[in-house]
Amino acid sequence: MRVSEKSHSGELAKIAADVLERMRARRPRVHCITNNVAQELTANMLLAAGAVPSMTMAPDEVAVFVSGAEALLVNLGTFDAERREAIDIAIEEALDERIPWVLDPVFIERSEARAFYARELAAKKPRAIRLNAAELSTLSAAAVNASSIADYARGNLTVVGLTGETDFVTDGVRSATIGNGHPLMARVTAMGCAGSALTAACHAVEGDPFTATAAALILLGVAGEVAGARARGPGSFAVEMLDAVHGLDTATIQKSARVK
Amino acid sequence: MRVSEKSHSGELAKIAADVLERMRARRPRVHCITNNVAQELTANMLLAAGAVPSMTMAPDEVAVFVSGAEALLVNLGTFDAERREAIDIAIEEALDERIPWVLDPVFIERSEARAFYARELAAKKPRAIRLNAAELSTLSAAAVNASSIADYARGNLTVVGLTGETDFVTDGVRSATIGNGHPLMARVTAMGCAGSALTAACHAVEGDPFTATAAALILLGVAGEVAGARARGPGSFAVEMLDAVHGLDTATIQKSARVK
Amino acid sequence: MRVSEKSHSGELAKIAADVLERMRARRPRVHCITNNVAQELTANMLLAAGAVPSMTMAPDEVAVFVSGAEALLVNLGTFDAERREAIDIAIEEALDERIPWVLDPVFIERSEARAFYARELAAKKPRAIRLNAAELSTLSAAAVNASSIADYARGNLTVVGLTGETDFVTDGVRSATIGNGHPLMARVTAMGCAGSALTAACHAVEGDPFTATAAALILLGVAGEVAGARARGPGSFAVEMLDAVHGLDTATIQKSARVK
Repeated sequence: MRVSEKSHSGELAKIAADVLERMRARRPRVHCITNNVAQELTANMLLAAGAVPSMTMAPDEVAVFVSGAEALLVNLGTFDAERREAIDIAIEEALDERIPWVLDPVFIERSEARAFYARELAAKKPRAIRLNAAELSTLSAAAVNASSIADYARGNLTVVGLTGETDFVTDGVRSATIGNGHPLMARVTAMGCAGSALTAACHAVEGDPFTATAAALILLGVAGEVAGARARGPGSFAVEMLDAVHGLDTATIQKSARVK
Repeated sequence: MRVSEKSHSGELAKIAADVLERMRARRPRVHCITNNVAQELTANMLLAAGAVPSMTMAPDEVAVFVSGAEALLVNLGTFDAERREAIDIAIEEALDERIPWVLDPVFIERSEARAFYARELAAKKPRAIRLNAAELSTLSAAAVNASSIADYARGNLTVVGLTGETDFVTDGVRSATIGNGHPLMARVTAMGCAGSALTAACHAVEGDPFTATAAALILLGVAGEVAGARARGPGSFAVEMLDAVHGLDTATIQKSARVK
Repeated sequence: MRVSEKSHSGELAKIAADVLERMRARRPRVHCITNNVAQELTANMLLAAGAVPSMTMAPDEVAVFVSGAEALLVNLGTFDAERREAIDIAIEEALDERIPWVLDPVFIERSEARAFYARELAAKKPRAIRLNAAELSTLSAAAVNASSIADYARGNLTVVGLTGETDFVTDGVRSATIGNGHPLMARVTAMGCAGSALTAACHAVEGDPFTATAAALILLGVAGEVAGARARGPGSFAVEMLDAVHGLDTATIQKSARVK
């Protein structure tokens, strides 16, 4: 499947709907190492989609939680010694057990120490990296354009899921542009983090990293539009977003997805 | 009162309504040691019911917060050395001051270290243990049935509040089955943890552990049905749940409670 | 401007509306050191108002986040050694860089150690201290009345923003009483903490500490009334509060503000 050559919007949208159906049927466990601010929305996003979250970061027990999970999310939102220890243990366990893991390098443009650490993690074969343009520019130490993103993805054997007004997903060979979403997504804290967790959940039920990442961003974007149409502001948007993810159906996804 | 022999649904429902009225009038302080994910919903559940939450886990000050509270919740959702230190201090203080405490042994089926620790805590005379079937099976190292639960409660001098599709409460002599609730309760993170906090709050205003625990699960189940009737998905359900607890009245509780 | 002498309700309300417009235009970064329970609502309150929150407390990186921010909030809601280290670093950075910082001495009436620490922090020139009557009485070791509050503000070269049924703001010379708000604000955890964060954000775009603090409490109170008119209980109130802050317009602020 080379979406970059023949982009079948309907095809990827159809796969996204199928990935969601699989998630609801299989209810994969997704372990999340994420920041305090994001934990509740992240867990609720996964539950809304049908997955089962766990969130412990205690170094003593993180390995057993990861080994019992079908996907792992690593988010850098807090950056202390204990967290880094838990992250190292969790990624090692995920790699040993061939459990897909997704990296969300939050706020690395604000701190050189974070950026350095994120680069180390990016070398540890995440199946996907979900991030925004400022974070990607810092991570790759390059200007952000389609060609440099593809180079980065190929060089790191990963899929980049770049979110913004338009989302862009590439594994360095295939690529997709997703035009869904809503401006209020940027006005709710941790919506990106929760989206990264949903991305990890998609990897739990879809073995192709490019497809899993694209599916996640399509589902998020379409749910964002459903929620945005109902919301009166960022408070109700967050609520409607969870309802929308929970209620998404194949017809809505196929009708609404704008994928190129 | 031997509810197990003559089960008066209306009687326990009436007591539950009365417990809630007392909570609104007395506004008990409830100290909660709980996991990061659960803290916000837990605090909001207590506030919605009329109680006053505090949540600090710093070993330096947890004793003074517990000694100023009328009930204590201990939830194992996070499992690190500092947390365990705070839990030990808090329980010792609660026992010294005869403050009722409630245990919620979250996720102990996932980690043997957690299960071991939970068994130690269960021996420290919690007034009630609120948990699901997987947790109870791990805690009691036994198959879960009415007889084994009663044995466990008697053996540990506690009340078991088992939640699931149907809730079951027993102190080993009396028992009650509560048929209220809504499937979306399982799709909101920390709803069980928040329910355990409400259980602790009921113990603050009702001295009989069996009655306090049954009252809490009746209130939660009825509120869940009110919320479920209004919600469109798990996002709005969480919001409606807090509104429902806040607005519960005696007539609704008595009309809706399904207790055997 | 001596509001205490000639109190022009419309004038301060107009300034509050203008401060909000500036916040939406400039999108100031506000770094928040706050308790776990409050982090999500705090971040969402800032985003709803147009500001950009960051929340890390890792001592390694807090200085770089503060130096990149336009205001700092310090909330004492959790009280452990690492937190105190982060707070000391953050305040030193804020003072060095002349970044305004706001203190919220949560729950200091419950713990002498917290009260002692809060008094140390209050001596480090916060632009404003946002708190309730029990906290102010503990902090100032005095009965709470207009004269003692003014003395305290003058003595500490700060602005006191006392919230309750009626809010009172003073720098020791000027003062304002704000009659807006809604009882459900006290039934949502961390609403006060989130209000303190909004206060810090107002200091980011308004250089006069008295005006910035009064503007913040006017905006919160008016938003609280808008939310209260729409809410069915504390769950929906929290949602409506974020929507109300996001949607507040000058006409509503000027029409609704009750400032003396």
